[in-house]
Amino acid sequence: MSQISLADLNAASKADFVAALANVVEYSPWIAEQLAAKRPFAGINELHAALMAAIQSAEPDVQLALIRAHPDLADKTQRAAGLTAESTDEQNSAGLDRLSEAEYAAFERANGAYRDKFGFPYIVCVRRHTRDSVLRDFETRLLNIAKTETRRAIEEIGRISALRLDQLVMADDRLKVHGRLSTHVLDNHIGKPAPGVPIELVELASLGESRIIARAVTNADGRTDQPLIGGRPLPIGRYELRFRVAQYYAERNVPLSDPPFLDEIPLRFAISEPESHYHVPLLVTPWSYSTYRGS
Amino acid sequence: MSQISLADLNAASKADFVAALANVVEYSPWIAEQLAAKRPFAGINELHAALMAAIQSAEPDVQLALIRAHPDLADKTQRAAGLTAESTDEQNSAGLDRLSEAEYAAFERANGAYRDKFGFPYIVCVRRHTRDSVLRDFETRLLNIAKTETRRAIEEIGRISALRLDQLVMADDRLKVHGRLSTHVLDNHIGKPAPGVPIELVELASLGESRIIARAVTNADGRTDQPLIGGRPLPIGRYELRFRVAQYYAERNVPLSDPPFLDEIPLRFAISEPESHYHVPLLVTPWSYSTYRGS
Amino acid sequence: MSQISLADLNAASKADFVAALANVVEYSPWIAEQLAAKRPFAGINELHAALMAAIQSAEPDVQLALIRAHPDLADKTQRAAGLTAESTDEQNSAGLDRLSEAEYAAFERANGAYRDKFGFPYIVCVRRHTRDSVLRDFETRLLNIAKTETRRAIEEIGRISALRLDQLVMADDRLKVHGRLSTHVLDNHIGKPAPGVPIELVELASLGESRIIARAVTNADGRTDQPLIGGRPLPIGRYELRFRVAQYYAERNVPLSDPPFLDEIPLRFAISEPESHYHVPLLVTPWSYSTYRGS
Amino acid sequence: MSQISLADLNAASKADFVAALANVVEYSPWIAEQLAAKRPFAGINELHAALMAAIQSAEPDVQLALIRAHPDLADKTQRAAGLTAESTDEQNSAGLDRLSEAEYAAFERANGAYRDKFGFPYIVCVRRHTRDSVLRDFETRLLNIAKTETRRAIEEIGRISALRLDQLVMADDRLKVHGRLSTHVLDNHIGKPAPGVPIELVELASLGESRIIARAVTNADGRTDQPLIGGRPLPIGRYELRFRVAQYYAERNVPLSDPPFLDEIPLRFAISEPESHYHVPLLVTPWSYSTYRGS
Repeated sequence: MSQISLADLNAASKADFVAALANVVEYSPWIAEQLAAKRPFAGINELHAALMAAIQSAEPDVQLALIRAHPDLADKTQRAAGLTAESTDEQNSAGLDRLSEAEYAAFERANGAYRDKFGFPYIVCVRRHTRDSVLRDFETRLLNIAKTETRRAIEEIGRISALRLDQLVMADDRLKVHGRLSTHVLDNHIGKPAPGVPIELVELASLGESRIIARAVTNADGRTDQPLIGGRPLPIGRYELRFRVAQYYAERNVPLSDPPFLDEIPLRFAISEPESHYHVPLLVTPWSYSTYRGS
Repeated sequence: MSQISLADLNAASKADFVAALANVVEYSPWIAEQLAAKRPFAGINELHAALMAAIQSAEPDVQLALIRAHPDLADKTQRAAGLTAESTDEQNSAGLDRLSEAEYAAFERANGAYRDKFGFPYIVCVRRHTRDSVLRDFETRLLNIAKTETRRAIEEIGRISALRLDQLVMADDRLKVHGRLSTHVLDNHIGKPAPGVPIELVELASLGESRIIARAVTNADGRTDQPLIGGRPLPIGRYELRFRVAQYYAERNVPLSDPPFLDEIPLRFAISEPESHYHVPLLVTPWSYSTYRGS
Repeated sequence: MSQISLADLNAASKADFVAALANVVEYSPWIAEQLAAKRPFAGINELHAALMAAIQSAEPDVQLALIRAHPDLADKTQRAAGLTAESTDEQNSAGLDRLSEAEYAAFERANGAYRDKFGFPYIVCVRRHTRDSVLRDFETRLLNIAKTETRRAIEEIGRISALRLDQLVMADDRLKVHGRLSTHVLDNHIGKPAPGVPIELVELASLGESRIIARAVTNADGRTDQPLIGGRPLPIGRYELRFRVAQYYAERNVPLSDPPFLDEIPLRFAISEPESHYHVPLLVTPWSYSTYRGS
Repeated sequence: MSQISLADLNAASKADFVAALANVVEYSPWIAEQLAAKRPFAGINELHAALMAAIQSAEPDVQLALIRAHPDLADKTQRAAGLTAESTDEQNSAGLDRLSEAEYAAFERANGAYRDKFGFPYIVCVRRHTRDSVLRDFETRLLNIAKTETRRAIEEIGRISALRLDQLVMADDRLKVHGRLSTHVLDNHIGKPAPGVPIELVELASLGESRIIARAVTNADGRTDQPLIGGRPLPIGRYELRFRVAQYYAERNVPLSDPPFLDEIPLRFAISEPESHYHVPLLVTPWSYSTYRGS
């Protein structure tokens, strides 16, 4: 997606402005038309706030039409018929394009039950979720009343549009839509950062396969050169970080038992705040370790 | 197996003494006959030391016959034909009666290769091992020369006989043949032991299925009423202790994130010293934990 | 003080019973007289409960007389004139016989203010206190109303009498009047308990000198042969445990920086529950350490 | 001291160059004269390396004169007579201007003994030391032979001149002459950085008074806005960081015992590498804490 500056958006003709923002909210050009009249925007946060105000002050039937303009999650027929490019990318980010038949079936049942109860599709900002957490969210939200779900759907449209704006528009300020997951290995045996420790990050799944989503090796400062997840929301879900510490110590000729008391150390934790920084360090000796949610 | 006191053994007729010790070493009554003449024994450690001395001072061909009197590990034909009750129990303790076809095949290959190279069966004190560590031990020992393996075989016969003596003979002293695995959950959030934490102990397997080998719930002192493994050697191998801490904190109304940052905490470690005490505690808050090899 | 069995107390003549318990409550034989009629007691807890019931059901003027039968704390004139042996021992236990002139003056002021306000002496079970915590307790209780202080005085008389009974009477059950302070040094550098670590326990004082109240060296299990404090209440107050870890590591030829990053490690903590078990361990490497309130 | 750029030094007349560097090495303009001919220097590290080469290749009697041009440490008579401004600042940095009479006496004895043995003054880069570590260094170096001490004196002159060059000359590169001491308070009770924790850094002294050398309060990220020591070498010595954690928890209404189990936590450690980064964090709950040498 090519980017456009906020200055250019502020200066554009109404038609160009509406065209540029066409896909920020699915099939709903009336929002961009309202925003055009509110220009200039001092920043991207102001632009997004105006967008939310436009939706929240719309008549109920207009809001409902907006919600209904969204596709079902992980729906095969709709995918075959074609989603917007944005929807496709987003659904793929959570692995919704790689579901097993059983998982498709689970999503289909959930979609059907939701539509039956509320009369509109279940909307969620999938970039903030793993497959596991989407299914949990489905279950929770199915218990709500319609009024609550209308509000929730608009909230999620707000999150989806914020992420799309963040990708589309360059401005001096940034929307707070990204999180960061980092780690650090401290070798308490020698009182120094541990370089060269192989690390895997696994997304744990209740249904279907857990999968490795990042691999890294610690650098001279015991950290990874890049965050394990960065530049995007942290998907809500359960994870496991695995550190190959026996290999690290063996390479440094530290005497270990056979088999080594600690070999691959798993740190299992969950992410619940997609826009936060999670620092999950490992303090380690051949005989002990600790971890904590750091900053 | 019914027990007999060392005093009774010391006082028994030679025939009764030899009969009582018949199965301490497989099909080798000559050892008990020699021991009968060395009576009285001041303790069970002295008895076992005499047994080892008898074997170690035997002529090479007698030692070889002793080694050859042992069955192959996990051999289906021999099991069908009948092992001594002691051998059967011991092999079952390591799960050798629950092998998959693939695992049987692996053991058969290893047995064959070992017999081909050394001309006698591979002997190991299986109560000190998991399936994983037996296969690793096989691989390592296949690389030895025959002389080393004769010595190793006698060592293992010594360990097997020590465990059988420990079960058979009551004395004032004890052989050092048992280990102990214990844990302790300390709740650093309130500065007290954590009661009511569900714990599972899993034996990890490279080949075949990992399996839960103990379940417990912590008592008022944050410990388990019984050691997780006790009263027997700790099988060499890799393990995982799992503590359900989110459940523990939720029951105490401690505010947690959703999903909780820490839910089921896995501590993965290996045992390499079957006759030692391994204490693997968990110090925990909803946001941090640590462990170490304790005592 | 020579001990007497509960059985003998139950069987004694009334006169002997009263004589035996004469000093359990200061100058108040009427209590023992009442208790004599309630015999036999099934245990020492039942005996002490009866004693408390006798005091609590006495008329207000009798209670007041009982309270007034107690000496002032740390009062020089009364000490010169002679306290009961029990009072003298108890006051000395908290170091009240080693006060500086300034401290005597502080106690005298506090005693005077308390007597002026309430018309009776300040009573506290000094075996449960350090000098620091007695002075803090004085300050807090001076703010109470008279009714509260009458109740508090009786509570403290109850604690004093429980400790005196515990020393005097042998029974099958025990009063819960003792605490225990213990430690444990775990060397995470080698995954074993740390033997031979010199330890000091210091009672910290705001007013006057801090003083070393126990010294020990860790044994093969990383513990001390005796608890640091045991067989008596843990005096409420602030403490520091000091562990000479650089010496320990140097003796084991572990490479250290010069000067060593960690040399003498101080763990500073407070005791607030005199009848509890405080376990304050040290988990240590040459580059890290941790502690926690354990059990 | 006003600064000068390396470019200007490279372009200056020889006389101006020598004048500019006059005080980099005490009373020894011949060094600057030699350096003038080696211009241009690509960076400040190259300049300092050339300076060291000039000294190291000088004749022994010239080196000796250079060493003798330095003042005694903490010498009252010389201070009264006037040191270079640089020497005065440096000696004051280690608190050598605030010595008690007893400490002056100790330094005088050490100076005298050193001069008697070697025939030249003891030289040390005092900015890298505390009073304690200077006295320890004195004792160690007094045991050396003269040849070793000549080498050590030149090393120290190298460190002194590096620090003076660092202050005097602006260049694109930097000499590695500074260290950094930082901390971080992580509240494991809530899984977040701890803001608002009052911290003191104390330099511990064996002889004379320990003194508070920095105070700070943690910011929203649990860190201090400025490093506790930064922009200069970390003086070799023993330190204590003190964290007022009971105050922190009380302000957040976390239930604490009375007195609180942990109130002011002291972390005692030593610095041995003045040009390194020492990170000494505190991971804390009301009932536990840990620290480690971090990065």
